[in-house]
Amino acid sequence: MQGTTGTTPQPAATYPPTDRTVPTRAADRACYDRELVHSILDEGYVCHLGFVRDGAPVVLPTLYGRVGERLYLHGSTGSRPLRMTGQADPGLPVCLTVTHVDALVLARSAFHHSINYRSVVVHGTAYDVTDPEEKRTALDALVDHVVPGRSGDSRPANKKELAATAVIRLDLREVSAKARTGGVNDEPEDLGLPHWAGLLPLRQGYGAPVADPGLAPGTPVPEYLSAPRP
Amino acid sequence: MQGTTGTTPQPAATYPPTDRTVPTRAADRACYDRELVHSILDEGYVCHLGFVRDGAPVVLPTLYGRVGERLYLHGSTGSRPLRMTGQADPGLPVCLTVTHVDALVLARSAFHHSINYRSVVVHGTAYDVTDPEEKRTALDALVDHVVPGRSGDSRPANKKELAATAVIRLDLREVSAKARTGGVNDEPEDLGLPHWAGLLPLRQGYGAPVADPGLAPGTPVPEYLSAPRP
Repeated sequence: MQGTTGTTPQPAATYPPTDRTVPTRAADRACYDRELVHSILDEGYVCHLGFVRDGAPVVLPTLYGRVGERLYLHGSTGSRPLRMTGQADPGLPVCLTVTHVDALVLARSAFHHSINYRSVVVHGTAYDVTDPEEKRTALDALVDHVVPGRSGDSRPANKKELAATAVIRLDLREVSAKARTGGVNDEPEDLGLPHWAGLLPLRQGYGAPVADPGLAPGTPVPEYLSAPRP
Repeated sequence: MQGTTGTTPQPAATYPPTDRTVPTRAADRACYDRELVHSILDEGYVCHLGFVRDGAPVVLPTLYGRVGERLYLHGSTGSRPLRMTGQADPGLPVCLTVTHVDALVLARSAFHHSINYRSVVVHGTAYDVTDPEEKRTALDALVDHVVPGRSGDSRPANKKELAATAVIRLDLREVSAKARTGGVNDEPEDLGLPHWAGLLPLRQGYGAPVADPGLAPGTPVPEYLSAPRP
């Protein structure tokens, strides 16, 4: 993993570690680099949002978008976490996590089986977005997060839709990335075992676009759908 | 979505809905069918495990395995959630979520952009697994969850490794699946807009296996790696 603040003091380029973002184990896999955090966040489609309800944890998958150092999430004004931010002043404590699985790691020993992954964990407090301008910015970011550039090629939300959409924001302050990369870590005495060992890479790909049956004949597939993510 | 207990009373085939598993919105997307729940769980590589620490939510990605109606998770005996189960009697309240993104849904209106997904949310209490036999079963399940059949083609954990591995169990009791399927839901007045609309399917694929450099020349790639998941 890339440098932490401990080894490369670049305050502007990293998030300051906190008690919550320094792991109790495999601390060498943790990283606070903003660019790495942004790239992991931007590559995901859904995050897993955790909050506490009646003293118990709840984890729900949800869409998100990023604008600089702020994440936006949205949902119906009737949905649970969003209603709670409206009621709870000052905001709702949340933990937001995004994970990519990059490879299966098959070791000779069962014990050393693992996966290569990249994840980002954001701790913080989510607040309702009430300013109409920020809400529009957030909704554009949410659409562009699904397909970059798409917000400019769709009808913007009208007043009724804006009113029906709750948006919450979560600032990137207490943030860490964690990753496992590289190969198999077997014990020296296991290297002679006959079992195949190595990595099986996982890749996310796209199928062919499926046009809506109501689409006017001849409507071209937008170029941005040919490779929506780098 | 398939039938809920309300429409298809098959107690043995479904999980009983509870206050926590009946969503406040889009309740028609919720489902309690055991087979569907199992299939979504079995297709995932990592779950997102939520728990409460110092009153705040924490969501961490982690491997898991399923044996019937029981999920197993593991980690170092030094890791946070697992240490907590050891300290906290009777167990640790958790929420475990697994999500698959199946397609991006591009509507003519920004508001109706969405994704097709399948997710499972499990509420419950996680307990330490201390029985050595159950621990071995759990570790086999964890390895076989990554690649079915792999536990039989690797060196089993020895006593030292077993002692260093904490395993927790979570029973499938309070469980729901949720899914969005189908096409675009645009407003009738938007159907004439010039924007392309439809689905962009997402697919998870495998790259070519990358053998560990220390592997004896000629070690064949196991057949189960050619199509590790259906």
